[in-house]
Amino acid sequence: MPFRFSGGPVKVKDMSEESLLAAITPLLPRGEHTILGPGDDCAVIEAPGGSFVVTTDVLVQDQHFRTQWSSGFDIGARAAAQNLADVAAMGAVPTGMVVSMVLPGDTEVSWVEDCARGLASYNIGVVGGDLSGGSYISISVTAFGSVEGPAVTRGRAAPGQTLALAGTLGLSLRGFEALTEGKDDPAIDVFRVPRPPLEAGPIAAKAGATAMMDVSDGLVRDAARIAKASQVLIELDPALLDAYVAEAGTIDRVLYGGEDHSLLAVFPSDRVPDPFQPIGKVSAGQPGVVMEGKRLTGGWDHFA
Amino acid sequence: MPFRFSGGPVKVKDMSEESLLAAITPLLPRGEHTILGPGDDCAVIEAPGGSFVVTTDVLVQDQHFRTQWSSGFDIGARAAAQNLADVAAMGAVPTGMVVSMVLPGDTEVSWVEDCARGLASYNIGVVGGDLSGGSYISISVTAFGSVEGPAVTRGRAAPGQTLALAGTLGLSLRGFEALTEGKDDPAIDVFRVPRPPLEAGPIAAKAGATAMMDVSDGLVRDAARIAKASQVLIELDPALLDAYVAEAGTIDRVLYGGEDHSLLAVFPSDRVPDPFQPIGKVSAGQPGVVMEGKRLTGGWDHFA
Repeated sequence: MPFRFSGGPVKVKDMSEESLLAAITPLLPRGEHTILGPGDDCAVIEAPGGSFVVTTDVLVQDQHFRTQWSSGFDIGARAAAQNLADVAAMGAVPTGMVVSMVLPGDTEVSWVEDCARGLASYNIGVVGGDLSGGSYISISVTAFGSVEGPAVTRGRAAPGQTLALAGTLGLSLRGFEALTEGKDDPAIDVFRVPRPPLEAGPIAAKAGATAMMDVSDGLVRDAARIAKASQVLIELDPALLDAYVAEAGTIDRVLYGGEDHSLLAVFPSDRVPDPFQPIGKVSAGQPGVVMEGKRLTGGWDHFA
Repeated sequence: MPFRFSGGPVKVKDMSEESLLAAITPLLPRGEHTILGPGDDCAVIEAPGGSFVVTTDVLVQDQHFRTQWSSGFDIGARAAAQNLADVAAMGAVPTGMVVSMVLPGDTEVSWVEDCARGLASYNIGVVGGDLSGGSYISISVTAFGSVEGPAVTRGRAAPGQTLALAGTLGLSLRGFEALTEGKDDPAIDVFRVPRPPLEAGPIAAKAGATAMMDVSDGLVRDAARIAKASQVLIELDPALLDAYVAEAGTIDRVLYGGEDHSLLAVFPSDRVPDPFQPIGKVSAGQPGVVMEGKRLTGGWDHFA
């Protein structure tokens, strides 16, 4: 007798985002023009005479934002920020975006205009889009960029190198907590509209960064992704995290808070370029993240 | 006393898709890397040593498809087809796609896998994506392409030139009607999964096409867009449409049926390259579309 799940066929809700992606990805063609496929902050596609980087992210009402908490401007700016941070994390300069918006008929046009102003707030061209009706708001942004030389992936960090960060850590989570608790806190602005240090991406590429990604799911979870892709051990230095703890309020926010969209990079030596600051080092060992000898795991899962 | 709309603030449902786009577009930056901005089948963005074309489209459950009528495969294939047709309509060869999917937790994983197989069915690389929860399914595809020489826009048709078509007309609408009436009809396959003649796009570009677009909203509506962009009059030749009428069943389906995703192009002379077939000509005059001296208007509005 064949085994059956008690609930019938397997549903999306039974899986993590990663396991669902792992089920789909082998079904998709790699494509003869693909230089770098899925699995990094951006893909890299061949273009006549060169290449470009591309990434896409979707924000869904009541999953990623609430219209009571965030204005149209905030949501547009956040949709742009998280995609542009992915472009910067390849060492690329953003060159454009396209946007698909699904809008309930009851959405006020002034809200949509406000959202457009948010999308526009990085002064990166929005070159096309699509609009559709639907019963809740969703905004899907695809962003592009150009990199001089090869794109910076997550996969070339090596033992002896330096882990460094540009941007904030745990401040978005501090803002989110303040908002839910009804407190006044300037960190609420970071939660509403993260401002990733886009200019730091190409700086890192020029300085020879061996790995880079944007911190969207928390320092530990995202550092573990570099560790896995590069097959290295990442050691966080608590003394170098002190300034971030002072700003975020707790070490847990610094380690596990998502959506600051900072840039986490690995450099060949401890001479890291501005605005990066060293926060740890890369060693040989079982891939993962440690602090004071203790393995750290966990973080944010948007799909859970 | 200030005038107020009786219903309060203006809502999305009070506007057409075009008027909403017209409200948003001026708020968006053009971008210093933009070669061609919104308004054509694709935008064109600068890349090191060249450029690439890009387009995006979103399919929303119960707006663009019903899961009772179309399988996951059909919907994935349709999402790919309509974007790849836009790439071909610039004279470009598709080089890749990225996909954002919003999925209710109750969606069966086998449906999602089936949708991935549909997206894959053109053998164009799917290089990245994003997944989110949500209360209905939506699929946003962004597709890219490379063109040798300048992209073919809608705006360079000139009087004396020849209007030609590659692909079908009115067959998707015939399939849709058969499906809703419970009839058996091979045209249902065209409604479910249009197969745009992607290879015809670069052929038209090489043959010197002066304007091209993909027919997604019906021949009359889309031909009127070329007429407006090029400031010309387009004259449809009913004798040259006979073969399409024979296939679609009625002239109305041929003139107004959407979603066949054929390629409509204008060539300098009446020697048009295979697989294009002449269907009319371009004249001087008030921009628009005429047949036997009568002005034609109307078509499909997805947002209405």
